[in-house]
Amino acid sequence: MSDGAFTLYGDRRSGNCLKIVYAADLLDLDYRFVDIDIMKGESRTPEFLAVNPAGQVPAVDFGGGRTLAQSNAVLVYLAEGSSLLPADAFQRAKVLEWLFWEQYSHEPYVAVCRFQMVYEGKSADQREGWRVTKAEAALDHMERQLAGRTFLVGTRLTIADISLLAYTRLAGEGGFDLSARPNLSAWVARCEETLGIDP
Amino acid sequence: MSDGAFTLYGDRRSGNCLKIVYAADLLDLDYRFVDIDIMKGESRTPEFLAVNPAGQVPAVDFGGGRTLAQSNAVLVYLAEGSSLLPADAFQRAKVLEWLFWEQYSHEPYVAVCRFQMVYEGKSADQREGWRVTKAEAALDHMERQLAGRTFLVGTRLTIADISLLAYTRLAGEGGFDLSARPNLSAWVARCEETLGIDP
Repeated sequence: MSDGAFTLYGDRRSGNCLKIVYAADLLDLDYRFVDIDIMKGESRTPEFLAVNPAGQVPAVDFGGGRTLAQSNAVLVYLAEGSSLLPADAFQRAKVLEWLFWEQYSHEPYVAVCRFQMVYEGKSADQREGWRVTKAEAALDHMERQLAGRTFLVGTRLTIADISLLAYTRLAGEGGFDLSARPNLSAWVARCEETLGIDP
Repeated sequence: MSDGAFTLYGDRRSGNCLKIVYAADLLDLDYRFVDIDIMKGESRTPEFLAVNPAGQVPAVDFGGGRTLAQSNAVLVYLAEGSSLLPADAFQRAKVLEWLFWEQYSHEPYVAVCRFQMVYEGKSADQREGWRVTKAEAALDHMERQLAGRTFLVGTRLTIADISLLAYTRLAGEGGFDLSARPNLSAWVARCEETLGIDP
């Protein structure tokens, strides 16, 4: 990635923003965090839309007109050349496979249920049934895929783990129970330890 | 990417599968297409789940145990080293930004509305209102972003264009009207011409 400091616009309750914090801190990158309260419309101001016209956090400003959104795209950019992104082309593709799966088949269910409870104050019973079903299926898929594995791709922590960890470790706040998923629970603890995150 | 032929498991009505066809054909890659009818449960057979445990098309088998899913991850892998993926690190990041936006903010709305009409035989009136609103917003976002631009990133066709083109060019089948979006309509025609796709 680029040398030098960057500005991360985000919300510290958002897993998509925390992914970038986790990676940047592990890589010891220099950045400034600017809090954006999406519930107060701060991701819809003209100033913020100049950074990310899609009006979503996180968004990063690397200076010189170089702004970048989409948490997983930022992860790839920051991790380039580090141990968090394998050099082997096929291993890199497997990391990207997990990153796209996270945004399509995990985040819209696991994270959105949590959003409804944490941001909107709903109870677990008020979550949509179809969304809960898909979230449980996503967690079950991870449980199966982690059988006999230390990390999601290869044998070291990558941005695939960081991306999936962000909302999986907070799944309890969305009404989900990881305790019956031993592979997943052990992987969460392993990632947290590697990243130095308090459980 | 890897040299040699690969097998693409997919459905020729699926934009996610067609993305790979468009890129592979433009790059003159050698591959075999195996039809998977998701409506007949063919993406849930043990044979298919061995290729993609997530049970989704497209999925690609490069041989030697190397299987890869997630359309946009496959696009990146196939395009590596070609003009379809810029060499510059920040330009690559901007391509990935579009790819993740496509899967999170475009495909679940534009493509799913089309799925409901083309695969499930629903009428435009039977689409969910909230999904239609998000689809129209996604198309409007592209219209604004394409103002004064030839392609989505840089000045040449990239996999960002191929990924977004797949369902945008078929948006009419989902009940959407591109004719009031001149930048988007011109971009669709430009991409189709570059890729040699009949409008």
